[in-house]
Amino acid sequence: MTRVFRLYELAEACDAITAGDASFEVSGIAPLESAGPGDLALAMNAQYLRQAASSSAGAFIVGPGAESVLPGRNLILSSSPYWAFAAILKLFYPDPAPCHRIHATTVVGRDFMCRGRLFTDAYVVIGNGVSVGDGCRIGAGTAIGDGCMLGDHCRISPNVTLYPGTRIGNRVRIHSGSVIGADGFGFAPKDGQWEKIPHSGAVEIDDDVEIGAGSTLDRGTFGLTRIGRGVKIDDQVHIGHNVSIGDHSLLVAQVGIAGSTRVGKHTVLAGKVGVSGHIHIGDGVQVGPMSGVAQDVPDGQIVSGSPEMPHRVWLKVQRILPRLPEMRKQIAALERRLDAQMREEEPGHDGR
Amino acid sequence: MTRVFRLYELAEACDAITAGDASFEVSGIAPLESAGPGDLALAMNAQYLRQAASSSAGAFIVGPGAESVLPGRNLILSSSPYWAFAAILKLFYPDPAPCHRIHATTVVGRDFMCRGRLFTDAYVVIGNGVSVGDGCRIGAGTAIGDGCMLGDHCRISPNVTLYPGTRIGNRVRIHSGSVIGADGFGFAPKDGQWEKIPHSGAVEIDDDVEIGAGSTLDRGTFGLTRIGRGVKIDDQVHIGHNVSIGDHSLLVAQVGIAGSTRVGKHTVLAGKVGVSGHIHIGDGVQVGPMSGVAQDVPDGQIVSGSPEMPHRVWLKVQRILPRLPEMRKQIAALERRLDAQMREEEPGHDGR
Amino acid sequence: MTRVFRLYELAEACDAITAGDASFEVSGIAPLESAGPGDLALAMNAQYLRQAASSSAGAFIVGPGAESVLPGRNLILSSSPYWAFAAILKLFYPDPAPCHRIHATTVVGRDFMCRGRLFTDAYVVIGNGVSVGDGCRIGAGTAIGDGCMLGDHCRISPNVTLYPGTRIGNRVRIHSGSVIGADGFGFAPKDGQWEKIPHSGAVEIDDDVEIGAGSTLDRGTFGLTRIGRGVKIDDQVHIGHNVSIGDHSLLVAQVGIAGSTRVGKHTVLAGKVGVSGHIHIGDGVQVGPMSGVAQDVPDGQIVSGSPEMPHRVWLKVQRILPRLPEMRKQIAALERRLDAQMREEEPGHDGR
Repeated sequence: MTRVFRLYELAEACDAITAGDASFEVSGIAPLESAGPGDLALAMNAQYLRQAASSSAGAFIVGPGAESVLPGRNLILSSSPYWAFAAILKLFYPDPAPCHRIHATTVVGRDFMCRGRLFTDAYVVIGNGVSVGDGCRIGAGTAIGDGCMLGDHCRISPNVTLYPGTRIGNRVRIHSGSVIGADGFGFAPKDGQWEKIPHSGAVEIDDDVEIGAGSTLDRGTFGLTRIGRGVKIDDQVHIGHNVSIGDHSLLVAQVGIAGSTRVGKHTVLAGKVGVSGHIHIGDGVQVGPMSGVAQDVPDGQIVSGSPEMPHRVWLKVQRILPRLPEMRKQIAALERRLDAQMREEEPGHDGR
Repeated sequence: MTRVFRLYELAEACDAITAGDASFEVSGIAPLESAGPGDLALAMNAQYLRQAASSSAGAFIVGPGAESVLPGRNLILSSSPYWAFAAILKLFYPDPAPCHRIHATTVVGRDFMCRGRLFTDAYVVIGNGVSVGDGCRIGAGTAIGDGCMLGDHCRISPNVTLYPGTRIGNRVRIHSGSVIGADGFGFAPKDGQWEKIPHSGAVEIDDDVEIGAGSTLDRGTFGLTRIGRGVKIDDQVHIGHNVSIGDHSLLVAQVGIAGSTRVGKHTVLAGKVGVSGHIHIGDGVQVGPMSGVAQDVPDGQIVSGSPEMPHRVWLKVQRILPRLPEMRKQIAALERRLDAQMREEEPGHDGR
Repeated sequence: MTRVFRLYELAEACDAITAGDASFEVSGIAPLESAGPGDLALAMNAQYLRQAASSSAGAFIVGPGAESVLPGRNLILSSSPYWAFAAILKLFYPDPAPCHRIHATTVVGRDFMCRGRLFTDAYVVIGNGVSVGDGCRIGAGTAIGDGCMLGDHCRISPNVTLYPGTRIGNRVRIHSGSVIGADGFGFAPKDGQWEKIPHSGAVEIDDDVEIGAGSTLDRGTFGLTRIGRGVKIDDQVHIGHNVSIGDHSLLVAQVGIAGSTRVGKHTVLAGKVGVSGHIHIGDGVQVGPMSGVAQDVPDGQIVSGSPEMPHRVWLKVQRILPRLPEMRKQIAALERRLDAQMREEEPGHDGR
């Protein structure tokens, strides 16, 4: 990290304004607690602003109005400080520039079409009829099946597998160990055995998608499994055959989605969520961690629990769960009280 | 997809009969909603039959008695329409014919025995003492450890790892990223540290098994982890050391089974199910999605929930969970009513 | 397995003493039920001791005081019989001796530093500026990124990926398919889209760690994701960015830990546990299988459930869950009884 930027240069890069010394030289980015006098640190909300006051950082990325909390300090004032942080980090840690180097060990099939610069590391295997856009990077040991299509500026990490026919847009990143386009899990029962349903479909991934490590996206039985534009998928996520994920949705680690389910746009499935097959989760939905979604969820809902329920109900339910033993005792006590009352009211009871 | 079949040819392939024009030429298979006049579509139950009436498909695979619902249409009538669909799909999308091509980059150890045709893609690594049957295909970058044995017509996808000693039957498919035979998770505690238990066992996989992408099947500590004949395993399934899975069972995505557990035949574990170690799940058992099975389950049971309970009980429990806050209020109200009653009955209460 | 050891040699290797014939020749280790007259078997507690009495094994590893239960048999008496078993297994199944063989297909970058013997299998790819200690083994198809550092005697299985900058101590084992150092899941929202947070941190793994197959450990956003000394990680475990795991903790299969969470020493997370981000789980904590931990857990606690609660409470709760339908009926019955009572007490009720 040897680059140095002036504070105003960084502010320009994220549509922000500065306070303090606009020509202050920033030589790095660091967390509040370890930042030094040449570093820029993020203080995105009130809690961090308190910490910032005693930080040694030379400058801060803050939200609007933070000047009064950090008087005299060098500030980048942004209405989206976390986003500004991301944009500035990219200046310090830019992606490697596109370059053309096909490693001598790359095995390439027939009818390969490469529309610009391509970087491959060792032992990449590219099938027949593959086309790749400009500026892609393909990591060591990655296998790209017949007929795959990649757009521009994709980064495929080492040891990824793309099954035949996978279609990938521009600026897509796929991390190591992920498998795109394996057969879906479809078997027809007969006489107590399972007959494989051949999977002739494919996976289509739109622009600006990122897929973490160790995820598996299965091809459609017929037709496509579709991942919309800008979708971000974490590690160890499983997506079944013919699922579609709407634009800009987020799937956190270890989520699993069964076949033919449709997930809308701008929807967030938190970690370890399981989703049944053949259902529809709407746009702008949020599903809490470890939830199991078994039925359709309309647009804009926030749900949690297994089975899913409105999140505000789940908050109450989860507080009650540890009190179930107590509730059970309360019910038993009520029954005893009522029984005792009835015995008292029995005719002749007093006289005995 | 350039093959064309007559309707009667397709019916013969799946032991079915035809209605309508038996010599109708089918040029493809497609879903009901997108099928064209040359296509065959599946309409396996009443719901799809209604859709079929307005479909442009040229022919349909249907169950018995559907002629009256689709009069005058070209039909394949099967007592197992979904299975017939699978069988017909295989005609249109046949597996590649066995062929012999050992890619020049294949690294093969000592004492390799190949009993027929073998197809390897680039950068396959085969250890010492490996034997492979006829008609196998091994994908790019796959590593096959010392002493592994494969039967006939196996298809191992790219970037699979078979640890030494793995034994695989005939017609087994293993998808990319899966790891067969890694050490089980066994450690002996001493003085607050963990001593590794060496794993000298292996994994044995019977005929006609399919294993999805990113699954991990650990070797036995001693002895075998066994996968029975015809078992189908989805993506990201984990199977611990010394587990055995009975014939024709189904393990859906993200299932995890801890060490030494035995699962019977014709049993289905739905997605994300977790199973404790050292227990026995019987034959013909069904476990609902996301359930946690902590104890033995007898043959034929249908269980769900975490911990598992009879499925019909779980159906009631899951309807009650969101009503727990209401139940808690009901109990409090009952207590207040009883308390109020008792105050009224106190001697002298009326007189005050 | 052709080695033969005298009973006293085995006892010495695990700081134990013998009973019976100390010079008895042990030619193998086997489970109680299948051990033959030349075999040693483990009978670590009362249950197995009963089984041992009728076993054909020639000798047994047992706890103190077992001589009376197995009079006249050849015994290794250890205060930690399971640990002794692990230590003896290592004599029979020793790790391969360190040797130096760099496979001709190994691709090595600039400035590679190897401080002793190194064994690589075929198609290993080593980036620039990598350093490796003595006695390491690297499996086929494994990719080691720029600037990675490995200590002595590490064993990296086939098809592992180490992202650039990963630092690994001594005697670390990583099983196939695992991915160390992929980018964490960090995105900043703006205008309904997600901007990637570049991840400049790394993963640091201390001595004697073992990582199972198919696990993913993400790099820090800044700074490190840290795995402490002696930690054992099972298959398909996911560890988010900037997480730290204390020494000698155990993470069982399919555990997932979200970003920036700290887990203490000697802590055990059972299978499929999910842990929220930015929380702190203390030392010596035990978390039951499939639990969801959403808040800090103090040292020494045993918790279970989702959300987590004291394990003894969870034991009661899980027994009550299947009885919720019954509880609901009890409440309704109580309401009816009270309602009936009140109607009886209404003025004029008797007279009707």
